[in-house]
Amino acid sequence: MLDIIEMRPVGVVRGGRREATKDHWGDNRCRLELDAERYTAEALAGLDQVSHVEVLFYFHIAADEPTEAGARRPRGREDWPRVGIFAQRGRMRPNRIGTSICRVVRVDGTAVEVEGLDAVDGTPVLDIKPVWSGYLPRGELREPAWAKEIMRQYW
Amino acid sequence: MLDIIEMRPVGVVRGGRREATKDHWGDNRCRLELDAERYTAEALAGLDQVSHVEVLFYFHIAADEPTEAGARRPRGREDWPRVGIFAQRGRMRPNRIGTSICRVVRVDGTAVEVEGLDAVDGTPVLDIKPVWSGYLPRGELREPAWAKEIMRQYW
Repeated sequence: MLDIIEMRPVGVVRGGRREATKDHWGDNRCRLELDAERYTAEALAGLDQVSHVEVLFYFHIAADEPTEAGARRPRGREDWPRVGIFAQRGRMRPNRIGTSICRVVRVDGTAVEVEGLDAVDGTPVLDIKPVWSGYLPRGELREPAWAKEIMRQYW
Repeated sequence: MLDIIEMRPVGVVRGGRREATKDHWGDNRCRLELDAERYTAEALAGLDQVSHVEVLFYFHIAADEPTEAGARRPRGREDWPRVGIFAQRGRMRPNRIGTSICRVVRVDGTAVEVEGLDAVDGTPVLDIKPVWSGYLPRGELREPAWAKEIMRQYW
């Protein structure tokens, strides 16, 4: 059950921001371009019926840097607590999968134009899923103050 | 950018439901057990500060069945429209990654007890991320009626 699993990106992020700076991703526009050798427009049929998608992507930048497995202070902030890699969203995490919800602007053949994705030009895309209200958190959300602070200028 | 990426599960789902039937996952309790050879409790430090986690897992059941790349009617329902694999959440999707948000019940060493995860005993876990309000959908959500119908008895 812990065997290696091979994944192949279904497409690539094209356009939009080129540098993975930390904040102000909200108006970033880019395209998710499916691999046209394996997919047709059929794969995206009906995606125009949802306002948001969840994009799963591979943190390909600095892929040779060591993976984090323990705990550290988010963003190196001395005033924030040490938390484990699975209690934060850092990209040097095991398997380096990023997930992010963004707005669908337009579906165009084998591509989707999106707004507000925090991934740079050239990022490999592993999956695209429709966001349904039924899959959002059930019950009241609780989160640490530092998480709210990180997100304050993020979008 | 479309090269194969190798992933290794960080742990396994233990306990809870054993059959992947479609509905009533809301009270399913199980443990996400990290691979103790690679992780210590440090990896989960601070996870008790969030109420919900997003679990990324591998749809390992029927892994030998063909992957869907085109469009079909969700759940085979003749009264629902044909939609592409990226416009639905079916498990025979490319890369077979499931994402789901569930409640944190308790952090216990290298394991997390969760409630409401729609994955069966033995499912490989690829990642665990804290759910932060800042990462939820920005702006109004729009979704098709059939998606709401699927979710009506899901939890």
